Amino acid sequence: MAQDHSNGGLSLAELARDTGSELRGDPSYRVFAVAAIDQAGPRELSFVHDGRYRSFLAGSDAGAVILPPAMADLFGGNRLLNEDPYLAYARAVELLHPPPPARASIHPSAVIGDGVELGERVRIDAHAVIGNGCRLQDRVWIGPGCSLGDRCRLGEGTVLEAGVALGEGTRIGARCLLHSGAVIGADGFGFAARPDGSWHKIRQIGDVRIGDDVEVGANTCIDRAALGSTLIEQGVKLDNLIQIGHNCHIGADTIVAAHTAIAGTARIGRRCRIGGAVAIAGHLEVADDVTITGNSMVTHSLRQPGTYSSGITAEGNRSWRRNTARFHHLDELFRRVIRLERRLGKE
Amino acid sequence: MAQDHSNGGLSLAELARDTGSELRGDPSYRVFAVAAIDQAGPRELSFVHDGRYRSFLAGSDAGAVILPPAMADLFGGNRLLNEDPYLAYARAVELLHPPPPARASIHPSAVIGDGVELGERVRIDAHAVIGNGCRLQDRVWIGPGCSLGDRCRLGEGTVLEAGVALGEGTRIGARCLLHSGAVIGADGFGFAARPDGSWHKIRQIGDVRIGDDVEVGANTCIDRAALGSTLIEQGVKLDNLIQIGHNCHIGADTIVAAHTAIAGTARIGRRCRIGGAVAIAGHLEVADDVTITGNSMVTHSLRQPGTYSSGITAEGNRSWRRNTARFHHLDELFRRVIRLERRLGKE
Amino acid sequence: MAQDHSNGGLSLAELARDTGSELRGDPSYRVFAVAAIDQAGPRELSFVHDGRYRSFLAGSDAGAVILPPAMADLFGGNRLLNEDPYLAYARAVELLHPPPPARASIHPSAVIGDGVELGERVRIDAHAVIGNGCRLQDRVWIGPGCSLGDRCRLGEGTVLEAGVALGEGTRIGARCLLHSGAVIGADGFGFAARPDGSWHKIRQIGDVRIGDDVEVGANTCIDRAALGSTLIEQGVKLDNLIQIGHNCHIGADTIVAAHTAIAGTARIGRRCRIGGAVAIAGHLEVADDVTITGNSMVTHSLRQPGTYSSGITAEGNRSWRRNTARFHHLDELFRRVIRLERRLGKE
Repeated sequence: MAQDHSNGGLSLAELARDTGSELRGDPSYRVFAVAAIDQAGPRELSFVHDGRYRSFLAGSDAGAVILPPAMADLFGGNRLLNEDPYLAYARAVELLHPPPPARASIHPSAVIGDGVELGERVRIDAHAVIGNGCRLQDRVWIGPGCSLGDRCRLGEGTVLEAGVALGEGTRIGARCLLHSGAVIGADGFGFAARPDGSWHKIRQIGDVRIGDDVEVGANTCIDRAALGSTLIEQGVKLDNLIQIGHNCHIGADTIVAAHTAIAGTARIGRRCRIGGAVAIAGHLEVADDVTITGNSMVTHSLRQPGTYSSGITAEGNRSWRRNTARFHHLDELFRRVIRLERRLGKE
Repeated sequence: MAQDHSNGGLSLAELARDTGSELRGDPSYRVFAVAAIDQAGPRELSFVHDGRYRSFLAGSDAGAVILPPAMADLFGGNRLLNEDPYLAYARAVELLHPPPPARASIHPSAVIGDGVELGERVRIDAHAVIGNGCRLQDRVWIGPGCSLGDRCRLGEGTVLEAGVALGEGTRIGARCLLHSGAVIGADGFGFAARPDGSWHKIRQIGDVRIGDDVEVGANTCIDRAALGSTLIEQGVKLDNLIQIGHNCHIGADTIVAAHTAIAGTARIGRRCRIGGAVAIAGHLEVADDVTITGNSMVTHSLRQPGTYSSGITAEGNRSWRRNTARFHHLDELFRRVIRLERRLGKE
Repeated sequence: MAQDHSNGGLSLAELARDTGSELRGDPSYRVFAVAAIDQAGPRELSFVHDGRYRSFLAGSDAGAVILPPAMADLFGGNRLLNEDPYLAYARAVELLHPPPPARASIHPSAVIGDGVELGERVRIDAHAVIGNGCRLQDRVWIGPGCSLGDRCRLGEGTVLEAGVALGEGTRIGARCLLHSGAVIGADGFGFAARPDGSWHKIRQIGDVRIGDDVEVGANTCIDRAALGSTLIEQGVKLDNLIQIGHNCHIGADTIVAAHTAIAGTARIGRRCRIGGAVAIAGHLEVADDVTITGNSMVTHSLRQPGTYSSGITAEGNRSWRRNTARFHHLDELFRRVIRLERRLGKE
């Protein structure tokens, strides 16, 4: 993005104070934007938080760099030392690139239902549709083309980007951010088999409740409960294209990467870190503080904190063909080895 | 969801009759809502259909419970005995929580093309766009912000939730339900390689045809055929975020869980049960009555009914690292075992 | 789709010339549509480009067939011989089924921001929202309900189907096609862990830049960069429901099938062919001309051209249960075989 240098910039003294960093360099030096370490110029602030980009430090033209103290000697210019450079960077971006202030306004093309309650400085963009009886607290921002079913409630400062759909009765806390195309509160997937093999839909009469400070990625789906509520606790971060089945319960501060699917009635603990493209079966429990690496398949409860994995990494097609064919005989191989061991007797 | 007790409720005599159950208890006792067995109160009806929740029965305050006859003795209160408690429950939810009656109306912000034919009691919500020559039969309901290309046809009582997009010429049967963000009739993915390595798009001039009583989940995509039709037969149930490639043919009453991808020109039989996050290659056939468990990878035709599986479940990260590294030498291991067997000679 | 025969059709002489094929048959014979080889009638053109459908040739009623020269003798009627029948077919479809001409128009319900620049013959459909300062070049077509953030730029002839969302500052080249529900420029997924286990959002201040002739499938997501740009080079073809993480760089003419997820800061080469349901980790490189087969898991850089694979195909559930259980002891099995080898000594 063309960096906007029209702001007045910030002095390194200000940045050190507001990011809780120790300054080594010129306190009055001003930077106007953040940039990656291999691209930053003299008017820009950069950061290095682990070894991956340290090789760029020596040749960097950055006006200042946020660094961990252990790497202080790798850069000759202005340094902001911080034990957690990534968190300090997160704060610096906000200071140097504040979001434009939201203008409170209701676009004339928006359709507002009966009995809707709007807080202060609410913004509703073009072609949004707000169902009857919705309550939007202060500074809620509804993007263009969003659709809220009847009786939704959104907490202070929550933002829906373009084209988000909320089913009726959805409740979302404060300061949440839902990206475009997210669908909250579509029917859970519940059918009873009829004797003739066809399916009888189970009406899904529950709802979705989302806590404060939750982020929901683009085109992610969170289904309404069959009965009761699908629960997303505060601080949960969901990436794009994720499926959360009906009656799931996701614990606070759990983070889930893109393309992961969690089937119905799974109960995921707090502070879990779930990689991308993971598949988690329904009706199971994952304990607090569990990490699941990308592409894993979880079919049983994981009751102890720790890191869990599955999946086999790609190899050359020719060797893969041989190995994968062998997999289908793996049990037989075990039996053959056991037989060999028996024939050889005790060691 | 806050249960709405404002309806008049139903007597157990009525519920027994309308769900085909045998009542053990007070025929004049009235319940007003359904609830989960661990949450139901005296004015609510619950159900237990398998062993998973039986432990809650003894302590339940439910006003009545639907049970299989074999579990009749596990609950002391009013019981509705049914050989298929889940199906009986499905019916009870409809009786106690009927959907609000749809009000026929065309919202003034909807844009209706030329030559559109509308049946009786059609509802078209705000900001929907109906292309030229579409035909919507009686009681069709088009949600807010939906977009129908030219010449789509929708059968009686079919409902599109908010933000569904139908490509031109899509045909959908009666009583279907398409959830928000579903995209039906986007181009199939077809390109011919040019000699220089770039791609020449194949115009996709086919369509999508969907039978009666089909459900399509949120953000699910069904592509139009290159030539001819992508076919979804009656009674198929598709969950969220599913991909159905061009020219697929899905047989009647097949059910597919979320995040499954079916590549182009696959032919799936009737009454199949396909789990979530399954990947099915194109140009193959799956027989009727096949079950594929979640996360499986299907690259060859499955010609016999039965249950098919693949995928390896998650384990502790440390042991996974060792096992997965070994997988890449699995063929070599077979060869080593064969060599050992040869050295030891005949048993 | 009901084929529209109202066009005047084309003579085989014209088709031979415009597809660069050698005609064997009647140059004045006219065909009016294309159709699959097992369905084509005397007024239709079909094609067979590999062995898969050759068996239909002998009995086909097609008015003419595009064939590779090696298969010329398998069909008795009019033939158009071409070394690349699929590419010739692609051209023939365009000739016989040209897309309807786009009518330039701005629908009165569209909302156009301040300072928007529109080229010649731009079309903007109902309920679309164009942010401030957007620039749309000649013949751009914005479908119904699309939303463009501020300062987006779209090149000549680019088409957005219904309900596409572009984040602010997105730049898209010429002749691109984005299908319904695609979300370009949602925030990348970046959070810094706070000491208490909660997450601090990293403001994503970069953008997405897409080259010429790119196709983006329905409900596919391409996230904006944290800093700088997520780059999709010219000629890239992305299928439906794909996730492209922030700061990815996808090389020219790479093609990716549905449901694949590419995590942040991955750099994919040119002319790669990536199957469906592939999961690619972030911060790695894939060389030019790499093929990755469907359902593979890529966690390390692939630095050499070639074909890479992983994934284990489905088998009967009973044998799968045995084999997958054994996998968790694979490392142990290797150790046991090594022990046996040691006991037997040198050969």
